[in-house]
Amino acid sequence: MTVYLDNNASTAVDQSVIEAMMPFFTETISPPSSDYGHSFGVEAKQALDSARETIASKINVDPLEIVFTSGQAESNNFAIKGIAFANLNKENKTLIASSVSHSTILDSLKALKSFGFNMKLIKVDSEGFIDRDHLREVLSDNNHSPILVSIPHGNVEIGTIENIEEISSLCQEYNVPLHIEATYTFCKVPIDASVVDLATITSHLIHGPKGVGALYIKKGLRIKRIIDGGLQENKMRGGTENLPGIVGFAKAVEIYSSETNKKARDLRDYLWQVFEKKITDYQITGPINKDVRLPNHFSAVINYVEGESMLLHLDLLNFMIATGSACSSKQLKASHVLTAIGLPTEISHGSIRIGLSKYNTKEEVDQFIGHLASIVARLREMSPVSAEFMREWQEMKEEGAVSEEDHHHDDSDELEES
Amino acid sequence: MTVYLDNNASTAVDQSVIEAMMPFFTETISPPSSDYGHSFGVEAKQALDSARETIASKINVDPLEIVFTSGQAESNNFAIKGIAFANLNKENKTLIASSVSHSTILDSLKALKSFGFNMKLIKVDSEGFIDRDHLREVLSDNNHSPILVSIPHGNVEIGTIENIEEISSLCQEYNVPLHIEATYTFCKVPIDASVVDLATITSHLIHGPKGVGALYIKKGLRIKRIIDGGLQENKMRGGTENLPGIVGFAKAVEIYSSETNKKARDLRDYLWQVFEKKITDYQITGPINKDVRLPNHFSAVINYVEGESMLLHLDLLNFMIATGSACSSKQLKASHVLTAIGLPTEISHGSIRIGLSKYNTKEEVDQFIGHLASIVARLREMSPVSAEFMREWQEMKEEGAVSEEDHHHDDSDELEES
Repeated sequence: MTVYLDNNASTAVDQSVIEAMMPFFTETISPPSSDYGHSFGVEAKQALDSARETIASKINVDPLEIVFTSGQAESNNFAIKGIAFANLNKENKTLIASSVSHSTILDSLKALKSFGFNMKLIKVDSEGFIDRDHLREVLSDNNHSPILVSIPHGNVEIGTIENIEEISSLCQEYNVPLHIEATYTFCKVPIDASVVDLATITSHLIHGPKGVGALYIKKGLRIKRIIDGGLQENKMRGGTENLPGIVGFAKAVEIYSSETNKKARDLRDYLWQVFEKKITDYQITGPINKDVRLPNHFSAVINYVEGESMLLHLDLLNFMIATGSACSSKQLKASHVLTAIGLPTEISHGSIRIGLSKYNTKEEVDQFIGHLASIVARLREMSPVSAEFMREWQEMKEEGAVSEEDHHHDDSDELEES
Repeated sequence: MTVYLDNNASTAVDQSVIEAMMPFFTETISPPSSDYGHSFGVEAKQALDSARETIASKINVDPLEIVFTSGQAESNNFAIKGIAFANLNKENKTLIASSVSHSTILDSLKALKSFGFNMKLIKVDSEGFIDRDHLREVLSDNNHSPILVSIPHGNVEIGTIENIEEISSLCQEYNVPLHIEATYTFCKVPIDASVVDLATITSHLIHGPKGVGALYIKKGLRIKRIIDGGLQENKMRGGTENLPGIVGFAKAVEIYSSETNKKARDLRDYLWQVFEKKITDYQITGPINKDVRLPNHFSAVINYVEGESMLLHLDLLNFMIATGSACSSKQLKASHVLTAIGLPTEISHGSIRIGLSKYNTKEEVDQFIGHLASIVARLREMSPVSAEFMREWQEMKEEGAVSEEDHHHDDSDELEES
């Protein structure tokens, strides 16, 4: 039995979501766009409209402002390139993102360079919040003509929830549209998307199917579609609609209740508490204040161990967690997010990230932390850095220079030591 | 019980495909890209690799030449814009397509105009085949620098199967890469994609799920990805892979046998035969030679009736067919394909299109043609054009000017009469 604790990378599809999709796999199979009168097309169209309403109302926007896509990557590319290509002929056109933005956003910006676009990345503080002064400075720079600001609403690696009202006010002052990457906050944090211009949301992190998401586009915003063809999605996204996926997405939204969130949050709080009791020499990454942190999210760097090694050992015991972001884990480089919040590379290699869901239990958390504590201890024994540190520390302790209490969590000390 | 005869717009997902997807909805949920060692990621990666092999081998290419996408629209946009954006700085850059290309291709070409690209559409003959002379003329025009030729391998509206070897030789002569839109031929007609440079294939027309497809990209071809971000799909398509969809797609390919095709083709041949017996005053659209026509495809224009009216009446009897293409049916304009093969607008409004599948039966075909014949008769009675024609024709018959045999299918006469 595997214990899956990586629910900010992907989630299990809820049984009721699968049931909701089923008739659209086998019965109502006609594309909803072909509503030239036949019943299947009409049924399909009604299901599509109803899904659009469910999702729009969840983020307080009009159904016609929702465009279904194939998920987070497409929605983010759509937001960035759609705005860029609508401003192709502007001079000094600049796109602004955060230094902790998602790779689909940062890579879209890089791709736009060959089309004559500039990009500016806003610094973040040690907890991952946008540096307001830096944003204002970039927005008011007369050498650039900002056409879009894109910020993560919730950060997958360190759990930071940005205050979108504040950022939105700032953008409105300079009359620049704002895109929020709300993949990780959608359904987990209340979102009033009507205060922003674009929002990326997706299905696969809320127990819905993979391969489906949406982009909220404020009415009247100048944007080009990136998947051309046909009349679907109010002419904003070509192609036969993935109706089973869209219906599943809406069902997942419908059943994602405050109870779902409370369960994951309580479990996260419990995990956090047990972690701090059982693990030594670590540093929480992202906000300490739980009110501005994704409710199901815990992340830390554990000193003197490699994230990869921890993961492998945990996997042998059938526990699944993440290190860095799933998207960049293959690269074996320090995560750009951990670098942006100022962590040195050696430290950030010890990063772990836990994403809890309604399917997890207290027992799983207890077992997980138990295993993690032994793995960390074993890895530190094997690690020369750790061994040396432990010896020195032991000597100091014997000399009376440190007490047991000192062997506790303290950010500044740990950073100096490493 | 609805009789679904629109299997070139969409198909019912096979039960074994649903079963194959199921573990990837609820159990193996980790993104395959996060293969940093944990078992779920490894299982996911293996499933992804295996699906890629199945699909690659079906069109005789290397697995690494297959990039999974969200389906036909994305693959077509990817092929067109990917090649265009890799040639952004070329002069007089021109993209060549067919006048019967799919809307996702034609609209991509239109969108590229603002980036300085030219487009040329190749004429087709009355059965929808590319005019070779016109293609050669455009390819050899020194005022243009062709960067891509895109042609439909199979045409959804009129069933034409193009000879890709012939077109490929011509393109190779001028050293221009060739993209084939193989959505409608994939699994239905043998495809050796290694003779072309790009091929669009999709899942939802072969009893696989919607929202997943692929683009074959020949090794070494200069192309840009259109969905940026991450390392997925050999860095050619960002975003968490839709693994349930991809696994379902591969399963659908696996079970799409020559038997599946034979069943649909036999049924189509039978339908064609009964249609010609029971319906009067029509014109087959697309190739008469069944060897160069999609095996499950039948299409015709029926004179003096509106396609829409036929559809509505058939729908009341729970029979589903199509008129024009599903994508353009909302537009209530004459289909661009029927216009391109030279049909006058009045005639093309009477178009119908049947797509058969392994789920259809001979009884359904019999019932369908029976209903169609009565509907056509009734509609013609109501139609003033038809009424007038029938009266005149009756008078001529009474005067001995026509015999019973004349009341049979004859293209040229019908075209003159209308």
